Amino acid sequence: MLPRQLFRLKRSMNETLDPQLESWVPSAQDPATPFPIQNLPYAVFSRTDGDAARRIGVGIGAEILDIRACADAGFFEGEALTAARACSGDTLNPLMALEPRYWRALRHRVSHLLSIAQKHLFSSLESQVFVRQKDVRLHLPVEIHNYTDFYSSIHHAMNVGKLVRPDNPLLPNYKHIPIGYHGRASSVHSGPMTIRRPFGQVKAADQEVPQFVPSRALDYEVEIGVFVGQGNELGRPVTIDRAGDHLFGFCLVNDWSARDIQTWEYQPLGPFLAKSFATTISPWIVTSEALEPFRAPFARSDEDPAPLPYLTSKENSERGVYSIQVETAIRSARMREENIDPYVVSKGSADSMYWTFAQLLTHHTSNGCNLVPGDLLASGTISGVERCSWGSLLEVTRRGQDPLELPSGERRGFLEDGDEVIMRGWCRREGARSIGFGECQGIVAPAVG
Amino acid sequence: MLPRQLFRLKRSMNETLDPQLESWVPSAQDPATPFPIQNLPYAVFSRTDGDAARRIGVGIGAEILDIRACADAGFFEGEALTAARACSGDTLNPLMALEPRYWRALRHRVSHLLSIAQKHLFSSLESQVFVRQKDVRLHLPVEIHNYTDFYSSIHHAMNVGKLVRPDNPLLPNYKHIPIGYHGRASSVHSGPMTIRRPFGQVKAADQEVPQFVPSRALDYEVEIGVFVGQGNELGRPVTIDRAGDHLFGFCLVNDWSARDIQTWEYQPLGPFLAKSFATTISPWIVTSEALEPFRAPFARSDEDPAPLPYLTSKENSERGVYSIQVETAIRSARMREENIDPYVVSKGSADSMYWTFAQLLTHHTSNGCNLVPGDLLASGTISGVERCSWGSLLEVTRRGQDPLELPSGERRGFLEDGDEVIMRGWCRREGARSIGFGECQGIVAPAVG
Repeated sequence: MLPRQLFRLKRSMNETLDPQLESWVPSAQDPATPFPIQNLPYAVFSRTDGDAARRIGVGIGAEILDIRACADAGFFEGEALTAARACSGDTLNPLMALEPRYWRALRHRVSHLLSIAQKHLFSSLESQVFVRQKDVRLHLPVEIHNYTDFYSSIHHAMNVGKLVRPDNPLLPNYKHIPIGYHGRASSVHSGPMTIRRPFGQVKAADQEVPQFVPSRALDYEVEIGVFVGQGNELGRPVTIDRAGDHLFGFCLVNDWSARDIQTWEYQPLGPFLAKSFATTISPWIVTSEALEPFRAPFARSDEDPAPLPYLTSKENSERGVYSIQVETAIRSARMREENIDPYVVSKGSADSMYWTFAQLLTHHTSNGCNLVPGDLLASGTISGVERCSWGSLLEVTRRGQDPLELPSGERRGFLEDGDEVIMRGWCRREGARSIGFGECQGIVAPAVG
Repeated sequence: MLPRQLFRLKRSMNETLDPQLESWVPSAQDPATPFPIQNLPYAVFSRTDGDAARRIGVGIGAEILDIRACADAGFFEGEALTAARACSGDTLNPLMALEPRYWRALRHRVSHLLSIAQKHLFSSLESQVFVRQKDVRLHLPVEIHNYTDFYSSIHHAMNVGKLVRPDNPLLPNYKHIPIGYHGRASSVHSGPMTIRRPFGQVKAADQEVPQFVPSRALDYEVEIGVFVGQGNELGRPVTIDRAGDHLFGFCLVNDWSARDIQTWEYQPLGPFLAKSFATTISPWIVTSEALEPFRAPFARSDEDPAPLPYLTSKENSERGVYSIQVETAIRSARMREENIDPYVVSKGSADSMYWTFAQLLTHHTSNGCNLVPGDLLASGTISGVERCSWGSLLEVTRRGQDPLELPSGERRGFLEDGDEVIMRGWCRREGARSIGFGECQGIVAPAVG
């Protein structure tokens, strides 16, 4: 390890990540909580009783710490206070727009406040600054101005490619350029979300003309999303060495897809209505800092071409690929009736990404395109080598040819009405405290025509 | 003509469109003005002297009428006042979000105020409510949340198709489904705009690996854009018979394109960085109402398949295809030095669109996708049958193989640094007063690496 890398690692492995650190909040001491003091994810919430105003909070155990209430109580000063003041609205965009030192200052201070020795600070204030997660609704935490979806899992690209081009699954550009497309920002919502089965034009191979019918090939895609922090001006690319400073935090993404609509519409300009009817994200944003202990090496083999210089950081250590385990489960209406647990269809890991998030961000701006705070960049479906790690039904059932059997005995080529899709994300590593993303949830409702 | 159609036509051919109507504003009486009283386009402006605040105005001849100043002067009441109050900010989004009856009320009242008999109303107020267009800067008039680009000129699709698939230029889906993709909203600006030549990955056929270099195939595309007025809720499509009520107004669009970047990146998910570095729109928004006299019939032949029912209005007369003439001119740096006028490369017409704007909007929402006020939908390159009507250099020069000669003697396969691209739009028809769109302008600046 180079000395500079070591320095970075030391600086980043700061006390907010110390695996021994405990919070005085009892529910945060539970080894099974996704939100120990090492995580501190952000959310936008409103109380279900009384005041329905949206507020910004930090998850700790089974509680939420209300940032504005803490600021009112005089808990912050300096850069942490500036950051806390940016949390007085109803979205995280103003905080995201600040420089990372403000994010760090707020995290550091919140971590300190919640650490075991500081309980006395709260005494009578506890009921004012905390709210239980079960007493709130979570909202879309960010005003998402632009949403870009990438295609950065090489195994997913290979699986999909095999279905359309068995002899030549991977296109020649794949290993050289991060493939992505603009998604629809307006239909991104945080779960739990009801997904209305979309109508669309579909044409079977044996039909002369298309029909306008409800999709019969509704699918999910499990992805990781990153929210852009500071933006960049039009015409001013972000270099790969600075890209990490623009990555605010991460969430789970379900990129719902109607495969039959996609097949008919996507040539020559790419997916459009097959995707734009809904995208669901998990409501918690896990910060880049919380993910530091879970950085992963490139998922490349020595035979793969080296990235072009604009995508190669000086230290070969840019931030952006993390060992985030994602699992996707399905629960049908019958399973809910019969009290059967959701059935885990796949478990994958974001460390199978062929491109890092830093590379995706730098590539996105390399033509001068301006990103703005709160833009969402998604990884594309996270799939690994094995079938049990494939992140969509398209792959798992080979376009429905090889249906899945649910514990209720029902079979699924694609999703049926009433099916619930639940995605979960975790980071686990020896020597670090495990942190979780919470859930990304959606349920399929029948088409309305 | 059916009685109901006749009624519609009569209702829409209201007094604000009377070709005999004259304004008391002298410059609006000039037969060459793009902004006679029959037009009344909206813009967002700020004075170049003194107060730099952005305000909403209506173009009339060589002047702008300041809507807020008129409201302050007590010129509005009822629905017109509600609409004028929605014009007190610095974007048109709040006005767009209102129901069309408010748009109509404001237009009707402004038309009345500016008509020849009403000069006396202004007397001492004239200097407060008018500003000369030469004394203002125009700004992006709308906060564009989402930008969608379609592909609705069949001649353009055919021309581009011939370059890649000479034997089979039109894909099988083209005549059945409006093809479109999500564009990048953040990089849409109103002209005049400096376009930084983008860097990007390009790979020549004889190269083993791509290079990251400034684009050598920078192009323009002349399009018509429509701004969405009222939005629709997620999961609630807009039917074709209601689509017209969601079309607020129109502008010119230059969808700058880097063809070499596009060729390498676009498979399988469509154009991305080849487009997202910049999109320029003309700063004036010509309302749907002003365009009523220029509605055109479908550009379909009887052999073309009938649109599916969800894209067929009961009256076969939905709003959305207009005879808007667009022309594109180039002026190189040398031409500017030598005082040579811009060279008109092409003249096309929006009535060559295969799909109407109403069909584009309905199709966009047909899967439940929600549109929001201020969303921009663009037609795609407007090209006709003849070479002189082709709306991009890709088509005109057949990907640079057949360069264009400028009056300065310079040759152009694609755009060079210093080239200015100027698009203009006009509606002209016997029996109607001609109205113009103004200009959509951009100039190419060298890449900075």
